[in-house]
Amino acid sequence: MANSSPTPNYVGVDVSGSTLVAALVSQEGAVVERRESALERDTVAAQVAREVAALRDARPESISGVGVGVAGLVNPQTGRVVVSNDLPALARGDLRAELARATGLDVLVENDANAAAYGEFVAGAGVGSRNLFYVTIGTGIGGALIFDGRLWRGDSGFAGEFGHITIDPDGVQCVCGNTGCLETVASGPNIVRRTRERLMRDSTSSLSRLGLKRDFTAADVAQAATDGDDFALLMLERTGRYIGTAIAAVINLLNIERIVLGGLIMEAGGLILDPIIREARKRSFQPCFESTQIVAAALARDAVPIGAAMLARDAGQSR
Amino acid sequence: MANSSPTPNYVGVDVSGSTLVAALVSQEGAVVERRESALERDTVAAQVAREVAALRDARPESISGVGVGVAGLVNPQTGRVVVSNDLPALARGDLRAELARATGLDVLVENDANAAAYGEFVAGAGVGSRNLFYVTIGTGIGGALIFDGRLWRGDSGFAGEFGHITIDPDGVQCVCGNTGCLETVASGPNIVRRTRERLMRDSTSSLSRLGLKRDFTAADVAQAATDGDDFALLMLERTGRYIGTAIAAVINLLNIERIVLGGLIMEAGGLILDPIIREARKRSFQPCFESTQIVAAALARDAVPIGAAMLARDAGQSR
Repeated sequence: MANSSPTPNYVGVDVSGSTLVAALVSQEGAVVERRESALERDTVAAQVAREVAALRDARPESISGVGVGVAGLVNPQTGRVVVSNDLPALARGDLRAELARATGLDVLVENDANAAAYGEFVAGAGVGSRNLFYVTIGTGIGGALIFDGRLWRGDSGFAGEFGHITIDPDGVQCVCGNTGCLETVASGPNIVRRTRERLMRDSTSSLSRLGLKRDFTAADVAQAATDGDDFALLMLERTGRYIGTAIAAVINLLNIERIVLGGLIMEAGGLILDPIIREARKRSFQPCFESTQIVAAALARDAVPIGAAMLARDAGQSR
Repeated sequence: MANSSPTPNYVGVDVSGSTLVAALVSQEGAVVERRESALERDTVAAQVAREVAALRDARPESISGVGVGVAGLVNPQTGRVVVSNDLPALARGDLRAELARATGLDVLVENDANAAAYGEFVAGAGVGSRNLFYVTIGTGIGGALIFDGRLWRGDSGFAGEFGHITIDPDGVQCVCGNTGCLETVASGPNIVRRTRERLMRDSTSSLSRLGLKRDFTAADVAQAATDGDDFALLMLERTGRYIGTAIAAVINLLNIERIVLGGLIMEAGGLILDPIIREARKRSFQPCFESTQIVAAALARDAVPIGAAMLARDAGQSR
């Protein structure tokens, strides 16, 4: 998508996965240019600075700001990464300050789920809504809220911890210390765990019959389901019911206009979305359910770069 | 509390219980004059109009508007009561229009939990906060949200349906159609139900030993616990754990500054509040929990009249 308008452009960067995605994004949220590289975990700030420079060299358009989405808790006042299980180096340094120094640009750092939510809101499955709840289901389960067109970060910047909602009080122990968090059954690794456990109990199924490798992932389960395997379908259906139970809590509490579901597992489409919606309907207060649209995310891996870029745009406008 | 300042006053009315409470409320949220009468269920609008007139006669201060809190869903655009299980007559008429005609004043109608939340926010346990979640535990369980100092009504006005959050997926059937809603175990009538069931199983306890009447209420259980009865204490402790589980979902999702708990059962003080806080801590994401204050409501039955009056004040200011 070429964009030669004279309006300002922004760089959005996603450092939440094993691949770094950097994109030049138009004022309206369209990706103008896109770069991917393997994430250099110990020197993230330097790598992001290089990617911004490369985008600058490749495109003549002026860049007005940089937004970076990171897997971690970000202090909304200072822009510093407080905790990052994936990239502990980020919490030791000051990504925002280092990057501002290296590029000479205004830099904004945001939690990846918040950035993705804002990306979907501006240019994806959230377009047309004013109030939105975004969920991403991956290695962990994240969430983010948009009220009246603005990110709701909560009192200390940590709102949207959807993965740690209790859906089974007597359930499995979670890394967070609680038992029965949504994440203990519906995150990627836990979909794999549940699938393994059930395969061991169920003598009529096997890894090979499912077409699964020894070290299969949740995406492989989704693929097997898409290929029509009953057992994989059952696993997705159960997973959808768990997610739908927690979604119902959000619907009841917030009477929210739109819910956008992202993450790799959503590539199974209706096979996961339909059970989510069924369970959410069953477990939510009817007048609240009726005014909520539950949809799949539209931007895939571009949600974070687009959202981070648009947050940098809005921060620039309010300065 | 006399208030002879020349600032405008508002009337706030609570028609959510068996007693109607009408209060003249100062600009700052102080009750200047207060009237109670048995609710006339079939002629609520006429009764409210009479109570407003009586307050006008009794006090020389001018009245600038009327706010009414009702147990029911209210359409925030039209001010009409959409559903009221307690007072079906309200949903057939137009309380706001009838009352405006009868009094010649601007009238605002609001859901009772929303009104109570705003009352606590302006003049009760919410003072000093900007973001608040309010819960009321009575015959039903209601909730309400305040974000950035304003009521958050959600997309169609039904936000805060806290009582229908699933806390036990395999639990008891709820009137709403779901199973295992918080309300099925922690509302007043369900505290009574659980107490009865357990008394029948437990041969060492009995109604008489608990000092309970045959038709005891949740308030009686709270009183028995306050008097030191172990069995009643256990019932409150379990109830607190159920409520705390749902509170944790709110904390995780919203990272909210303050949570205010109201309703008759809260008169047991720490005997119910402590287990709520313990369970909420256990089941919420630690950084979210740490920035939340969980406190008991301060205004008792005045929360709705004060809140409704203050909403009428703010509606007048924005006109």
